[in-house]
Amino acid sequence: MTPPFYFEDLRLGLSWPTASAVVSEEEIVAFATKWDPQPFHLDREAAGKSFFGGLVASGLHTFVLSFRIYNDLGLFRGTAVAGVGVEALRWIRPVKEGTTVSVLATVARLEPTRRPEHGRVTMRLDTLGPEGEALMTAELTVLLLTRAGAELKGG
Amino acid sequence: MTPPFYFEDLRLGLSWPTASAVVSEEEIVAFATKWDPQPFHLDREAAGKSFFGGLVASGLHTFVLSFRIYNDLGLFRGTAVAGVGVEALRWIRPVKEGTTVSVLATVARLEPTRRPEHGRVTMRLDTLGPEGEALMTAELTVLLLTRAGAELKGG
Repeated sequence: MTPPFYFEDLRLGLSWPTASAVVSEEEIVAFATKWDPQPFHLDREAAGKSFFGGLVASGLHTFVLSFRIYNDLGLFRGTAVAGVGVEALRWIRPVKEGTTVSVLATVARLEPTRRPEHGRVTMRLDTLGPEGEALMTAELTVLLLTRAGAELKGG
Repeated sequence: MTPPFYFEDLRLGLSWPTASAVVSEEEIVAFATKWDPQPFHLDREAAGKSFFGGLVASGLHTFVLSFRIYNDLGLFRGTAVAGVGVEALRWIRPVKEGTTVSVLATVARLEPTRRPEHGRVTMRLDTLGPEGEALMTAELTVLLLTRAGAELKGG
C-alpha cells in the first residue's frame, strides 16, 4: 500500500524512514535569529563557553526540521485534516552544526473519534544522527480523514 | 524581583504576560513554505475549502512564535542552560491570518536535579487570541542554573 494513507489504512507499529538533512551553521543561526535568539544558537564563540561546548541548533529548529522531513514522506498528503497536539518531546542530544539527521516515523496510537469521517493518529518521530543515535523524540497527534469521510467529501 | 531568574527565585504559579504579535498572511505563507507546506497554510483558495475555511498558521508556526514572544520576556536570559522537552502541547483553535496573539507564561513545575548547579523548571505557555481565547497551550521544560551553580561558574 502506498501513501497517502487514510485512517483505516494504518496499523500500530508501521514505520517509515525519512530522507536525511544536514543542519548547517548558517541554518542554525538563521533559525535562531528569528525564533530562538540565545547565544549558544547564534555565536560560535559564546557557544563554546556554554553547556554545549559548541554551536547547537535550537531545539525548536530540530523539531520543525524533523517535522519537515517527516512531512515530505507524504504519508498523509491530502488526508491530514488538522494537528491536534504534541506529547513526550525530548531533546536527547544536542544537534551540532554539520550533523546529518533523519527521522523514523512510527504509528504509535490509533483512536477513532466521535465523527465517522475522522480518526486520530499519533506518530512517533525519532530523530536520529548519522550513527543512528537518538537526538530527539516526539509524539505528534493528527486528525486524519477516514475512507468513509473521503466518500462523504466526494474525495 | 526582576529577571533574569535563577532556579531558587521561582515559585509555582508565578506568571508573566508577553507582548503581543500579529500573525500576517505573509508570515504564515513564508513559515509554511519552509517548514510545513500543506495547502491550508499556503494558499488562501485551497484553505477556504479545507476544514479551517480559510488560511491558518501552521501549528508549528504558532508554537515557535509563542516561544519567541515568551523568550523575549528574558525571564531566563543567561540562566537557561538547555531545553529538556515539551509536554501537553494542544492546538486549541486555528490561528487565522491577522490574529493578534500573546502568551501567558506560568511556572507549572519545579524540580531539583541531581546536580546542585541545575534545576528543572516547567513553564506553561498559554497562547491567547485578542479576546483572551485559548489558541494553544504547551508545557516547556528547561534546565536552569541555580544561584549555587552561578557561583561555581564564577557568574
